[in-house]
Amino acid sequence: MFPTTTRQLSILLLALGCSAQLIVAQDTGTGDDAKSASSNVPGQEYPKIHADLRVDFRLKAPEARKVRLHLDKDYDLERGSNGVWTVTTTPQVPGFHYYWFVVDGVNVSDPASETFFGVSRQSSGIEIPSAGEDFYEAKDVAHGEIREHYYFSKTTGAWRRIFVYTPPDYDLHLKTRYPVLYLQHGGGEDERGWVIQGRVNFIMDNLIAEGKAKPMIIVMEKGAATRVGEAPQSFRPPSGTNRPPGGFNFVGALDDVFIGDLIPMIDKTYRTKTDRAHRAMAGLSMGGMQTFAITLNHLDKFAYIGGFSGAGGGFGGPFDVKTANHGVFANPEAFNKKVHLLWLGVGTAEPANLHASVVKYHDALEAGGIKTVFYESPGTAHEWLTWRRDLREFAPLLFVN
Amino acid sequence: MFPTTTRQLSILLLALGCSAQLIVAQDTGTGDDAKSASSNVPGQEYPKIHADLRVDFRLKAPEARKVRLHLDKDYDLERGSNGVWTVTTTPQVPGFHYYWFVVDGVNVSDPASETFFGVSRQSSGIEIPSAGEDFYEAKDVAHGEIREHYYFSKTTGAWRRIFVYTPPDYDLHLKTRYPVLYLQHGGGEDERGWVIQGRVNFIMDNLIAEGKAKPMIIVMEKGAATRVGEAPQSFRPPSGTNRPPGGFNFVGALDDVFIGDLIPMIDKTYRTKTDRAHRAMAGLSMGGMQTFAITLNHLDKFAYIGGFSGAGGGFGGPFDVKTANHGVFANPEAFNKKVHLLWLGVGTAEPANLHASVVKYHDALEAGGIKTVFYESPGTAHEWLTWRRDLREFAPLLFVN
Repeated sequence: MFPTTTRQLSILLLALGCSAQLIVAQDTGTGDDAKSASSNVPGQEYPKIHADLRVDFRLKAPEARKVRLHLDKDYDLERGSNGVWTVTTTPQVPGFHYYWFVVDGVNVSDPASETFFGVSRQSSGIEIPSAGEDFYEAKDVAHGEIREHYYFSKTTGAWRRIFVYTPPDYDLHLKTRYPVLYLQHGGGEDERGWVIQGRVNFIMDNLIAEGKAKPMIIVMEKGAATRVGEAPQSFRPPSGTNRPPGGFNFVGALDDVFIGDLIPMIDKTYRTKTDRAHRAMAGLSMGGMQTFAITLNHLDKFAYIGGFSGAGGGFGGPFDVKTANHGVFANPEAFNKKVHLLWLGVGTAEPANLHASVVKYHDALEAGGIKTVFYESPGTAHEWLTWRRDLREFAPLLFVN
Repeated sequence: MFPTTTRQLSILLLALGCSAQLIVAQDTGTGDDAKSASSNVPGQEYPKIHADLRVDFRLKAPEARKVRLHLDKDYDLERGSNGVWTVTTTPQVPGFHYYWFVVDGVNVSDPASETFFGVSRQSSGIEIPSAGEDFYEAKDVAHGEIREHYYFSKTTGAWRRIFVYTPPDYDLHLKTRYPVLYLQHGGGEDERGWVIQGRVNFIMDNLIAEGKAKPMIIVMEKGAATRVGEAPQSFRPPSGTNRPPGGFNFVGALDDVFIGDLIPMIDKTYRTKTDRAHRAMAGLSMGGMQTFAITLNHLDKFAYIGGFSGAGGGFGGPFDVKTANHGVFANPEAFNKKVHLLWLGVGTAEPANLHASVVKYHDALEAGGIKTVFYESPGTAHEWLTWRRDLREFAPLLFVN
């Protein structure tokens, strides 16, 4: 029934095009309790994480002259006599970190790692465990689904892919209608970010199982949209040479996509509660800026607003609470009554300028009488553990009024 | 509202960790009608495919000594004065092909390509268009969904991820029940294969829109399972040194997972037709071997069987139609009455030994009086275009009796 000779197996492997590419995990023994990273592809032993969060990396590159690792900083790897380059890093901050090797000057992914769409390409990433935290792990609870869904956008003239989280009971209670959170990724990422890096489904499954969050639908769009006939505007390097006149617009046609295409389609296709009191929007970094731009422009559509390491307020630039966003904050009593939650989150270990910009926006809003909820994620940087914690704290506050 | 100065943008990009990693598509002009591959990440111009299916590849690697491309064969790239290495391949066979660069001896992914889990890791891949064929493209038709679903397997003692295709009308007709096709990936791939490389959803959406296939649910499992307490057995290189006694078993605990865990869960969770006349199983390569092993062992559960470039019959080894699989073929009249379809497919450009093994199995079955449908995909190799065509031809024959 199955290949039983080496020849037969060789043919199979040859036919599969993988005979030269198979890498078998080898237990070389590290002499301590280091464990393979959960972000490795199956069967790969390295990278391996020590109890103190130092990480061992390996790359077989007998002919390379120089191999570096880019993680929290750059590390030089050392070549062994077997052509395998190795390094052990300093202890890493818990969370999810993109990384790559630099082989003779070329940035390359680690073949032992799963890939994650970030930094505008498919990158290696490593999950550094956070002691005592497992709210984003798959647990023995009822699981919702992540649905890959395509819909046609009149605004862009093209089909768009979204991911939709439906809670565990969605297919059991066929007459129940659910509130909706629209949840945006960050710059250089796409609509896969919250699913793969963010683990949105496990976080929500766990919160719902504990009774901490209401069952809700979560819609994850792409943070880029171009109107029919317009040239796409993408994230560009800060060289200045390619800056569009008037600066970068991180919303573009996305406002029209959300209001004209996406929300009506979601309310038609899924069993949603369609009033503003049951619709929220949040996003991380660039997605946070998109969230403030879109929601503050359409308060008739949204009652809950969340910025995870990304807010309004010109990213630390000039911000006048009385005149910003067409005067939406000018009457704080009216705003506070209308908006049930305005959330601002940031990690304490984020770059100082970014942290300061969120604090500055928060302070300006509070000084203007606008109620906010401010959350600082202890010890985490501008990465997914910060945003997973944001979601864990944010989701329980939704749809409670 | 948005960063408007280079400094503000720099902070943002720094915070996103991507300032050094952004690569902007440049229109350097090739002087002909070459087009960027659809498998590139957004904004990347290369690889670029000429009308005659030659492909231009590019890699910036100023310090590398030697850069090769592994595609249908190995190509040496040439270094330009700007540190960018280039090559134009010979015309490629239409279809989906894994590829990688070899930089100073190290196999690396192309940062310009999406990644695809194959060859037991995340690999670059290129979609070479097939003239006049668009049955696997997203069209302006009603789209079904791909659902990422987790369930607990008692056999393995662990949660397993599957992908489930639900047809376009699944959420509209809430009392309709659907037949189910279980569809397996090949060796070195995983449960993502049919979704990402295979484009199962677009193929089915198009077939259903044309009225060529019945709306059905498709379940895609992982082709590896290990019983509680057993060590995982993975795909291994043909060195012979690690061969388990008795040869390789490509089914392992998968039979128990399917019969004991998966099928009961699917029939409980989705609106399925639960009798054998409405259950099919098919798979490609290793998944085809799994399909024959499982279905022939449980004909009380399956009425339709498909092998795409992978069949039973010992992979070209000894096969006695009278005694194989506990004598299931011994009474051909009874078998032909019970099994509504036994499908064998293979590409004409597959490796000769593999092609011959499928033909040999087919001939032995036919000689034994077993009815089969034999399909040859013209001009395609052991890759996804062969298997997409298999599905296009196979699905219309399902659930018609």
